[in-house]
Amino acid sequence: MPVRKFSSGDASFERSPGQSADIFAANVIDERDGGPITIGYGRYGPNQSLQAQIAVHDVMLVLEGQVSVTTATVTVHAGPGDIVYMPKDESVHIQSHEQGALTAYVTYPHWKTAEGAG
Amino acid sequence: MPVRKFSSGDASFERSPGQSADIFAANVIDERDGGPITIGYGRYGPNQSLQAQIAVHDVMLVLEGQVSVTTATVTVHAGPGDIVYMPKDESVHIQSHEQGALTAYVTYPHWKTAEGAG
Repeated sequence: MPVRKFSSGDASFERSPGQSADIFAANVIDERDGGPITIGYGRYGPNQSLQAQIAVHDVMLVLEGQVSVTTATVTVHAGPGDIVYMPKDESVHIQSHEQGALTAYVTYPHWKTAEGAG
Repeated sequence: MPVRKFSSGDASFERSPGQSADIFAANVIDERDGGPITIGYGRYGPNQSLQAQIAVHDVMLVLEGQVSVTTATVTVHAGPGDIVYMPKDESVHIQSHEQGALTAYVTYPHWKTAEGAG
């Protein structure tokens, strides 16, 4: 596979599986591309939240807005340029705030395969 | 390891190994943390360039400025919010432009281990 460039405008957002909030994910590289990692963009409406058991190592980078991630032991708040690292098997509660959020993510291995969603 | 949050202000930048340009890398998560991926921030001075054989799968996300990546077959230009995916074994020429650049990166596996630099 050659070097490739992506923008959030290239991405096809779909509602994040297993929940009904206004939280959407768009893989731009995943298991269909033959490599080991998934890359994508996430879009959160205002004041949305998502509870997840992280099945993969998940790196979230905030591009716009604010996101809070809470576990049993810690809460972190992230804004533009901040990275949240969610290691595999953590149970997390992810919240957006009034301005919503745009994020980018990288997972190893592929989250859709790990969650049985793809 | 618990969930962790990073900002570029937390990062300790070092000159990128094997070159003398004003290009600096700062791992915030790497082989010392016990997981499979490296996460970090990159900082490029104005009009700098770097030739590299990519030893790992490398995802670069542009936070500020502009970066161009050229291979034997393609050139891509990336600005804030854009992602450049550089698969393992690609030979790339990375250039910043007059405003320099701030990037975030995720690699699988660890780039320092793969390059014998760590």
